[in-house]
Amino acid sequence: MTGPSKGKRPTLKDVAAHVGVHYSTVSRALDPATAHRITDEVRARVLAAVAELNYRHNAAAATLRTKSSKTIGIVVPDITNSLFGPIIKGIDSVSSQHGYVALIGNTDNSPDKEGQLISTFLARGIEGLIVASALREDDVVSAVAHDGTPIVTVNSHVDDDSVPSVSYNVRPSIGALVKHLADLGHRRIAFISGPSSWSTAEERLAAYRYWIGRVKAVASDDLIVFSREYREEEGARCTEELLKSGVSFTALMCASDVLAFGALKTLEQHGLQCPADISVTGFNDVPMAERWSPPLTTIRVDPFQAGKAAAEILFADMKVTPEERLPKHVLLPASMVVRGSTAAPSPLRRAKEM
Amino acid sequence: MTGPSKGKRPTLKDVAAHVGVHYSTVSRALDPATAHRITDEVRARVLAAVAELNYRHNAAAATLRTKSSKTIGIVVPDITNSLFGPIIKGIDSVSSQHGYVALIGNTDNSPDKEGQLISTFLARGIEGLIVASALREDDVVSAVAHDGTPIVTVNSHVDDDSVPSVSYNVRPSIGALVKHLADLGHRRIAFISGPSSWSTAEERLAAYRYWIGRVKAVASDDLIVFSREYREEEGARCTEELLKSGVSFTALMCASDVLAFGALKTLEQHGLQCPADISVTGFNDVPMAERWSPPLTTIRVDPFQAGKAAAEILFADMKVTPEERLPKHVLLPASMVVRGSTAAPSPLRRAKEM
Repeated sequence: MTGPSKGKRPTLKDVAAHVGVHYSTVSRALDPATAHRITDEVRARVLAAVAELNYRHNAAAATLRTKSSKTIGIVVPDITNSLFGPIIKGIDSVSSQHGYVALIGNTDNSPDKEGQLISTFLARGIEGLIVASALREDDVVSAVAHDGTPIVTVNSHVDDDSVPSVSYNVRPSIGALVKHLADLGHRRIAFISGPSSWSTAEERLAAYRYWIGRVKAVASDDLIVFSREYREEEGARCTEELLKSGVSFTALMCASDVLAFGALKTLEQHGLQCPADISVTGFNDVPMAERWSPPLTTIRVDPFQAGKAAAEILFADMKVTPEERLPKHVLLPASMVVRGSTAAPSPLRRAKEM
Repeated sequence: MTGPSKGKRPTLKDVAAHVGVHYSTVSRALDPATAHRITDEVRARVLAAVAELNYRHNAAAATLRTKSSKTIGIVVPDITNSLFGPIIKGIDSVSSQHGYVALIGNTDNSPDKEGQLISTFLARGIEGLIVASALREDDVVSAVAHDGTPIVTVNSHVDDDSVPSVSYNVRPSIGALVKHLADLGHRRIAFISGPSSWSTAEERLAAYRYWIGRVKAVASDDLIVFSREYREEEGARCTEELLKSGVSFTALMCASDVLAFGALKTLEQHGLQCPADISVTGFNDVPMAERWSPPLTTIRVDPFQAGKAAAEILFADMKVTPEERLPKHVLLPASMVVRGSTAAPSPLRRAKEM
């Protein structure tokens, strides 16, 4: 890629003619997997001719010959959610060690687009896939796994347990959060769930239900509302719904920080202060949540490590046959971070709800 | 992609034999660009055979035949910076209209990795490139442009003006910000610049210098410090450097919000309150900056629109020959947003610096 080349592009055969060898020799010299079979002297002459003729090795053709593209694909559901940047960096840290390039696709929470992206990746010859957009029932992900292409889900997982995954062990930290709120004196703790099609949502809701029955708090489906996407607008809509329903609550647990962000906005629009009137919590500990007003009490996970762990499984699976793969499910730790968005309920509001 | 296929994969010729036509007919029927040349009846029989045999069309091979991959590439410098998510969404909104898939690569601010990613994209047959990681002198970007592959830079631009770009018209809004601080009574306004290898940094610094000379404020190179990357850690380091240098200032303009985020942390660590002791400003208006404590006064840009505009140039350029392309440079508007991080300097601090 140095300088203009307006004319006809040189071919492999042009390079071969220039060096005076058969074109298969040039092909072998340019393929990392076969270059060792060529003498150093011939390889040097081939590389000199490549530079002189400004020949660009066509990797699409090379992939067809060698079946190695040195590329993996990453699929994320929402590139504007700050959760996925560190996951991608974690994956990248492993793939570059292996001499691989990671290409990313964004589904915008659309299963159709997920299918289209995964087809594109497979068609472009990627050797493995890491999917952060997988829903619990994800036909495309299952089909890829059964077809033999190495695939790992990260952050969420599919119900089909033959697809390896990396996610978080959420129950203990959600327990800590429920106990923290109960200890502060909250009895009516509402919950904004993620969309139930996601494993993340189902697990966080199950943990909330489990722990709410084990502390001195009200367990009621009236306190639970479901978002349709992990987005600020949905956090706002669900909070609006809770307030309109007339159900009383002094704390609001949100299944993600972006939902909490939307919830805080809506509470303010209704003249409710956090934490004086309502305590609010999130999940993920996104960058800068410490600087929110109020700073957000949340659950901290380490998406960089999750991306790294997913890539390690993927590269191990890429080295063996489908039959030799052991579908691993890795759960990484999560921990509660208490900040200013949670406090004891005001005596007035507590009295009202009793 | 439905169900397992453990045996030998069916080929194009298997499909052709099954239908009883020449394999070139199957190839044409499966290529959107040539499918209209085949009768509806034959096309239906081909598609039925494809489904029955579970044949997967090999797009790597198809690309070699048709030269159309229906894929574009996007290169971003730091996937964890929330600026780039909306840019990618803006690009996606245009590429999906054209029936194209956009694949993304992250350079982690490494020019080497930028080169590697762009080579990978070209080798995988992408038809156009949008680069958000371009430095002012970017040999790879220039080489691609001169080689004839459509390429557009977004957010920043290269010095080589034959490469089209979409960025922001920053001078008026930085002028508004300098005047806002001067009107509040600030005379010593420090500036944390971006790395000078970026066009964004050079333009924002030039605008600061231009306006600082036109208001009642001190113009001095002692008030300017250069970051090495647009990262929180660099904002912290530069603030530390300014404080250690002993130069007095009551306001601190930062060339990006992430730099401001690091600056705010460091000021606090030194017992300095914002805005009571030091006013702080950013650039970009990243999501949630309105909820920072204090909410950040900054310059708002619209990265979604920037991504969209870049993709529109790219798709227009993809339709014409390199000679017919007119390298456009689009500047989108930017505007000041005043929030709680700027206020009048305290009388004490002002007196001290006079």
